[in-house]
Amino acid sequence: MKFIETGRPQLILDEVRCKRNINRMISKASQNNLIFRPHFKTHQSLEIGKWFKEAGVEAITVSSVDMASYFASDGWNDITIAFPFYSGQISALKKLEQTVKLRLFVNSIDQISILSESLHNPFHVIIEIDPGYERSGITYNNLDKINEIIFACDTYSLANFEGFYIHDGRTYQSRSKKDILSHIKPVLKVLKNLKDLYPSSHCIMGDTPSCSILENFDSIDVITPGNFVFYDWMQVNIGSCNLDDVALFCHTPIAQTFENRIILHGGAVYLSKDSISINGQITFGQAIKYDNNEIVKFDDLFINSLSQEHAIAVGNISEIEQMSLLICPIHSCLTANLHSYYLTTTGKLIEKRILS
Amino acid sequence: MKFIETGRPQLILDEVRCKRNINRMISKASQNNLIFRPHFKTHQSLEIGKWFKEAGVEAITVSSVDMASYFASDGWNDITIAFPFYSGQISALKKLEQTVKLRLFVNSIDQISILSESLHNPFHVIIEIDPGYERSGITYNNLDKINEIIFACDTYSLANFEGFYIHDGRTYQSRSKKDILSHIKPVLKVLKNLKDLYPSSHCIMGDTPSCSILENFDSIDVITPGNFVFYDWMQVNIGSCNLDDVALFCHTPIAQTFENRIILHGGAVYLSKDSISINGQITFGQAIKYDNNEIVKFDDLFINSLSQEHAIAVGNISEIEQMSLLICPIHSCLTANLHSYYLTTTGKLIEKRILS
Repeated sequence: MKFIETGRPQLILDEVRCKRNINRMISKASQNNLIFRPHFKTHQSLEIGKWFKEAGVEAITVSSVDMASYFASDGWNDITIAFPFYSGQISALKKLEQTVKLRLFVNSIDQISILSESLHNPFHVIIEIDPGYERSGITYNNLDKINEIIFACDTYSLANFEGFYIHDGRTYQSRSKKDILSHIKPVLKVLKNLKDLYPSSHCIMGDTPSCSILENFDSIDVITPGNFVFYDWMQVNIGSCNLDDVALFCHTPIAQTFENRIILHGGAVYLSKDSISINGQITFGQAIKYDNNEIVKFDDLFINSLSQEHAIAVGNISEIEQMSLLICPIHSCLTANLHSYYLTTTGKLIEKRILS
Repeated sequence: MKFIETGRPQLILDEVRCKRNINRMISKASQNNLIFRPHFKTHQSLEIGKWFKEAGVEAITVSSVDMASYFASDGWNDITIAFPFYSGQISALKKLEQTVKLRLFVNSIDQISILSESLHNPFHVIIEIDPGYERSGITYNNLDKINEIIFACDTYSLANFEGFYIHDGRTYQSRSKKDILSHIKPVLKVLKNLKDLYPSSHCIMGDTPSCSILENFDSIDVITPGNFVFYDWMQVNIGSCNLDDVALFCHTPIAQTFENRIILHGGAVYLSKDSISINGQITFGQAIKYDNNEIVKFDDLFINSLSQEHAIAVGNISEIEQMSLLICPIHSCLTANLHSYYLTTTGKLIEKRILS
């Protein structure tokens, strides 16, 4: 792979690895009789969406109504909006429902009522369950509230109760496959209990660590992972994947070199300010070597600080002879979100959505 | 101020406060006989640039060659690129030099040679000085290297040595005006020493905390602050400004309410992942009340976690009756960078640059 020195950081996409990740997850879903509705918030690209479509995917998940509109414009017509419904979304949803089967996260009977009175087409109601993570959703043991919503779906003809969604972000604190499993076990138990109580419901789960390593999906009917399409340095450290599975990098020109420090053009507006702590060392990205299609990390070189344009890598720089470094991002969703296109390792430009 | 519920987070700009900040810094520069070259990396907007122009500003600072090209397209013709020059920038600089007086950060004689052989117009050479912050620049006491560059400017006719630039990000660790002063004192001393050695050079300093609170600018000839145009919650905590000076907010719809927790639609892709620690509490933004043109913070309400779309505010929510919250961002540069427009408190849309 040869990079043109363009005088700015670039987002680099390995199409082969990306398609390998897509196909691996599709196979896994199929082998486990799971419905696959991949989350498109990571790549936010119509072009990459087409790769999923060509591989047989028909339904997707997004994280906002705006993002749903973007993908609906390319013909996607079965979209789960994996963020709590609120009434400000109504006018956008009224446009979307004309072409899209909407699957919405609903937390109260008032919301069922607002949606039923505003929309003109049937919509699917998904109850987000909070397994104790304390983000959004209804607490797993609040059966009164869950029953209320399910009963309301019987009352309003447009509202079709579909099932339960769980995203337990605590799997992101894992540092091994064993860790992921120990985080996910109680979540699977919560879903099993719900399945026992509401046998015709779908159980939906989305986090990439669980979807990547689970062999037995138990009560789960639908998976909605997103990050696996690129993976990232956080997922490598969580235990979800190997470095060789990562498909997204930031190409950062070297701006200045010191004895044990490099200034990269690749600050927070290119990588995002997300970080992880590894053995007590905070890091904002991992420098890698991408030779002969093999990905290897630079040992003893840490990106330990970012400002708007600068990334500072400290450590052993004796091996670095080139004019730029490839950085494996900490969190590919946030890194990709900062760019308006991907440049593939074979030189193709792939457009993506930007926030408007 | 009334907000239309648009079903998505919006960046809100208080034009009155923003212009007050601009005029205050212009007056301060003028009263202290300082050249004012404001940094436009914070607002990244041609429209806001015009506000500076109307107030008499003629020269600006930016953080990348791309950003220089953006502002050059609107007629700005005196631009300091406050990031180390590297050779990948040459082709973009060749376009820029046709209309713009370029002030470049140069760290070696090789770079002077590359620039002189590639460009066709005179350019100004600024030596970035590292006062011990250990980001970019030449260490303040490396006089051999500094002399080398200054002598090279005599050799190459296009290269005009202008002076020294210092950005000491350690002022960002301050928590009071006194703290800022104690951080900045050694930096002023470094500049004074350089001024004594090179009396005809300009001393240039840029950080918003110092420019906001200094009464005596000593050896400084040019100031280049950027963040002051909006300020933010970090600057309030540093001691650079009052909450009432902040001009930028994120309007975040409330998506779900719990007993002592609110889920806001306003995650990392709207606010950025930047955070500060206040009394041991990590926070990603400060909820504020904007009534009768007065800005007051919500006490005991902390945004203590962000994911891609979700912001979680925990604490006392008893006062909250509305359907959305205004969040004072931690770091307005990174928050603004995520959006393609500002909505003013009077309902005007102001376009801005997005990364391409």
